[in-house]
Amino acid sequence: MPTVASLAFTSVEPLSLESGQTLGPITLAYETYGSLNASHSNAILVCHALSGDAHAAFQHETDPTYMGWWDSFIGPGKALDTDHYYIICSNVIGGCKGSTGPASINPATGTAYGTTFPIITISDMVKAQKRLMDHLGISQLLMVIGGSMGGMQAMTWAIDFPDSVRSCVPIATTSKLSPQALAFDIVGQNAIMTNPEKGLPLARMIGHITYLSNESMALKFGRKLQEKTDYSYDFSTDFQIESYLKYQGEKFVDRFDANSYLYITKAIDYFDLSKKHGSLEQAFAHTQAKFLVSAISSDWLYQPHESREIVHALMRLNKPVTYIELDSPYGHDAFLMDNDKLAQAIPPFLESLQ
Amino acid sequence: MPTVASLAFTSVEPLSLESGQTLGPITLAYETYGSLNASHSNAILVCHALSGDAHAAFQHETDPTYMGWWDSFIGPGKALDTDHYYIICSNVIGGCKGSTGPASINPATGTAYGTTFPIITISDMVKAQKRLMDHLGISQLLMVIGGSMGGMQAMTWAIDFPDSVRSCVPIATTSKLSPQALAFDIVGQNAIMTNPEKGLPLARMIGHITYLSNESMALKFGRKLQEKTDYSYDFSTDFQIESYLKYQGEKFVDRFDANSYLYITKAIDYFDLSKKHGSLEQAFAHTQAKFLVSAISSDWLYQPHESREIVHALMRLNKPVTYIELDSPYGHDAFLMDNDKLAQAIPPFLESLQ
Repeated sequence: MPTVASLAFTSVEPLSLESGQTLGPITLAYETYGSLNASHSNAILVCHALSGDAHAAFQHETDPTYMGWWDSFIGPGKALDTDHYYIICSNVIGGCKGSTGPASINPATGTAYGTTFPIITISDMVKAQKRLMDHLGISQLLMVIGGSMGGMQAMTWAIDFPDSVRSCVPIATTSKLSPQALAFDIVGQNAIMTNPEKGLPLARMIGHITYLSNESMALKFGRKLQEKTDYSYDFSTDFQIESYLKYQGEKFVDRFDANSYLYITKAIDYFDLSKKHGSLEQAFAHTQAKFLVSAISSDWLYQPHESREIVHALMRLNKPVTYIELDSPYGHDAFLMDNDKLAQAIPPFLESLQ
Repeated sequence: MPTVASLAFTSVEPLSLESGQTLGPITLAYETYGSLNASHSNAILVCHALSGDAHAAFQHETDPTYMGWWDSFIGPGKALDTDHYYIICSNVIGGCKGSTGPASINPATGTAYGTTFPIITISDMVKAQKRLMDHLGISQLLMVIGGSMGGMQAMTWAIDFPDSVRSCVPIATTSKLSPQALAFDIVGQNAIMTNPEKGLPLARMIGHITYLSNESMALKFGRKLQEKTDYSYDFSTDFQIESYLKYQGEKFVDRFDANSYLYITKAIDYFDLSKKHGSLEQAFAHTQAKFLVSAISSDWLYQPHESREIVHALMRLNKPVTYIELDSPYGHDAFLMDNDKLAQAIPPFLESLQ
């Protein structure tokens, strides 16, 4: 596997945020895979989800155990083929993996922003990424692709910078959170605001429930007991699903900043293309990208009908759009797993753009 | 509306629990509505759900503002007609509304049990209720009825005391929690074990999400903002659903003991008729009751197919069973709302038992 180094780009000019506030200077941690061609026309931006980072693929130069979150998709001969395309992935602003976020030092005060960090939106994240693209000399992206919150960024790229996006692949995402998805975020945020250190694992546990389908939980864990044949009849860990959720929660605290979780989920909650643009049609009215929208049959967090709403809005506008629904029992998480149907669709879709 | 007084029954003999431990003396808070007939054959036991109590109906004698949780079903001329039937409802052991639970004083120590309270199961709750029936001179119940955890108790009555139950009406319930329902309980329990006072509202918020369907949330709240026209761009309450969940969480702390929540949800988690009896058929093999099983179309916590599994097991055993699925968008909560379809089915079902 090729190796990759983490890079950082700093833009001194403050970023005007959707809230009316400013943030700056901003640093974006990013990685690139493959080579930019002479005409700068083979660049693909990969956008990460809530807990993702810039390390999407390849062997990390300084830590070989640090796996890329989308290694199954990005690499030589893979769906996003690094022999042909120049792939870029950057950590979002608000994040905690090298980009400017609540854990960063506020240059004005010399201490970490913490909760004085301004509220950021998906459009703000994309605006920061646009600066990185300008810095890399990429005026037009061949593709912007991402799942979950990454799909929100992909759509926002196509909407906010229509001239800069040739194709857009939003996966397992939505144009706005359903009230139920919103409600889960709200409980997680309340847990963190009550006690950041102890709330973050709870928020993560709730998240994990929503990333798995009931069916995939049944397949993976069912009601199986953890290293015992009968109930403990006390409050120790009885069920395997209990052990899994606790482990995921505890592990997450070591690698994620509670405030980042708060700010990024808030950005997700605020994402509402209809509210911002008047309607879904108005949101996509000026896009120039060719769309490939993809959903997962068992995803109950961002349900297939929410992806189809996006498809239908684009169709009503006579915009080029294809829709792929992956038939999988694995719920929302399936977008990060072996999504062969989408993986097979992407190379011809990319070729069709030539 | 007739009035009702809270009663209490104390049984001195310790109760042998499923865990192997004992609990005693035990007190059960209960209420009765209507009159027991001379042959003691018109008694109906109503079993409450997780956060319920003995005050199921009528105007409470000492607090007229204290509403019965099933007033829509119980009363003169209603589905459970107090002009004809003698209705009993008792607070479960483990509860915090007058029955012996973690907040009760342990007579052996003179202090509250707290987490030294033994783990209790649904069978233990029913065993305690059986003592109350014996005390009231009721050797056979005309009906045991309840929704959610109340349905688990109703089925357990028919299984554990087959001679004592003429009919059983489990509503919006299951023979065992799905892994997903289990997972939600686990997060709530972890929140409480981390911090009882601050965890209980979080557990309740999670509970409320599971009691409502995504559709009913959309109908009730959608993404509507709370007393504002645009986002706050801070961490104050933005959405109506946020305000609702926070209010439900905060209000719950005033009326419920965190340890009771822990013990009762554990009893629900442990409920697994197939595990306990070998299979669902073996569980119901010796029941003598006539069953009326009811589910709600949009209930994703205890899904209709889980009720149908119970029905199918009873059918395979040639046991008398009827199934009613309420077509409602209101999710699990619908069992406590105007469930006309079930309300209309109950009087003829009761008459058929004469």
